[in-house]
Amino acid sequence: MIFLDTKFIVQFEEYQQLINNELGNLIKKKHKTPIYNAMGYSLLAGGKRIRPILLLSACVSCGGNIKSALAFACSLEMIHTYSLIHDDLPAMDNDDYRRGMLTNHKVFGEAISILAGDGLLNLAYELMIEHCINNNNLNDIEAFKNIATASGVNGMIGGQVMDILSENKTIDRDSLIYIHKNKTGALISAALTAGALLANANNEIVGKYKEAGDLLGFAFQIKDDLLDVTGTREALGKDANSDISNNKSTYVSLLGIDKANEDYIAYSNKAISIFEELNSPFLKQLALNLIRREN
Amino acid sequence: MIFLDTKFIVQFEEYQQLINNELGNLIKKKHKTPIYNAMGYSLLAGGKRIRPILLLSACVSCGGNIKSALAFACSLEMIHTYSLIHDDLPAMDNDDYRRGMLTNHKVFGEAISILAGDGLLNLAYELMIEHCINNNNLNDIEAFKNIATASGVNGMIGGQVMDILSENKTIDRDSLIYIHKNKTGALISAALTAGALLANANNEIVGKYKEAGDLLGFAFQIKDDLLDVTGTREALGKDANSDISNNKSTYVSLLGIDKANEDYIAYSNKAISIFEELNSPFLKQLALNLIRREN
Repeated sequence: MIFLDTKFIVQFEEYQQLINNELGNLIKKKHKTPIYNAMGYSLLAGGKRIRPILLLSACVSCGGNIKSALAFACSLEMIHTYSLIHDDLPAMDNDDYRRGMLTNHKVFGEAISILAGDGLLNLAYELMIEHCINNNNLNDIEAFKNIATASGVNGMIGGQVMDILSENKTIDRDSLIYIHKNKTGALISAALTAGALLANANNEIVGKYKEAGDLLGFAFQIKDDLLDVTGTREALGKDANSDISNNKSTYVSLLGIDKANEDYIAYSNKAISIFEELNSPFLKQLALNLIRREN
Repeated sequence: MIFLDTKFIVQFEEYQQLINNELGNLIKKKHKTPIYNAMGYSLLAGGKRIRPILLLSACVSCGGNIKSALAFACSLEMIHTYSLIHDDLPAMDNDDYRRGMLTNHKVFGEAISILAGDGLLNLAYELMIEHCINNNNLNDIEAFKNIATASGVNGMIGGQVMDILSENKTIDRDSLIYIHKNKTGALISAALTAGALLANANNEIVGKYKEAGDLLGFAFQIKDDLLDVTGTREALGKDANSDISNNKSTYVSLLGIDKANEDYIAYSNKAISIFEELNSPFLKQLALNLIRREN
């Protein structure tokens, strides 16, 4: 990340630490069993925690209690991590490195790696339902539903399926937009929507967070395509040019670097203007940082 | 199945039809997309629907409304089916046949098959949370929690992990019992517990359904081990002796056929006596049928 503002850095790192501590508590206490070991390996591998931070900061921005949003934030990171573990499998992207470390199946073998992914997805739902029982608030269940829908076949998994079926073909712009909006965008948008819901924000405000989330999520995936071409393995922590070697159509391969950059900045700026309107300086800074990120 | 009683047969087939219709509605209306096609292939492949029928009949037995339990029943079958799709993968049991048909990855390829499993697991949670939003009843959320816990790393996935790690080794009786109680037993027990909860049964009654479910689930897996040795591919719809060819310790390999039979009948009979006490003639008949099943 490239930080612009000291107050933002402090806040970002506070969120990160809160999430890392909680994820550690949830996984490490049972770390001695092989499946917790495999789940913890990827979950505690130093991800940036963008999705849970989006959720926590949206909740705080709407006047919500950060502690009551922590279970959902961790669940979101578990869902993100499970998707990476399954994406990296030999049958999918067949990646050897992720976040500068060997991928899960390279360390634990494919069978345990598939189950570690399944386990993280399931644990995310266990955590959220436990929270719903303890809180008994209909808005929490709505937040749960948003995350579940964004993660499923009409969200992240749907995007991933279309992505795989598009390998070794040239796809049209509509298909690419479907992939980008769903594969990455859906969960980023759900992070902001769920954060606002957990703070019991009204429908209009929740709608604005969702709108900003859709824009930011789409921009985020265009940036991923750009980084795959312009980044290095050192900065990315994984192989660069993997889209090219997997014959994948990307925003860059379809529309060129210049148009990808232009659209990326346009979508990000629209999201930023909504965060300004919502008086969320932290989210504005976070979006600015995402624009400038190198990995 | 071997049926003993006409009234039971009619009721069993009514439940089966209700579940099959609902699963068909949930999947077929979106059947044109490749992922729904892959999910539907395994979900609508003619399973016996034991788990959802246990849930529906426990709910009815406790005076609950069958329609309000249908979403959870279908979710349970989706979770069961996802676990079969992932179990059959080359990295796991590497099975070519299931229910007399080619396994999911043999038809759709490994990548789509992993995602079809992920999609079914996620869809199960989407359905249950949708139901919870519409009903707004804390007992439904408790039922959800029971199913989620039973499906996770401290339930079905935990049993599956231990099962895989035990391949090509002789394990002790405690490890085998852990595998059996979790890999299959947890979801069967959760079916009965969730059914009672959805009917708003009191804690004592819910506890009895859970106890019967634990016994029945354990017995069910011992029977699976027995059928793997004594069954035929024709009756099973999958290869017999797969445990032997995968070098897996089973109740039979560890304790012998006679002891396996004896324990199987003892656990089943304990479950049956609880169903008698609960005045659930359908569940008693179902347990008797499970004792005599050939596949």
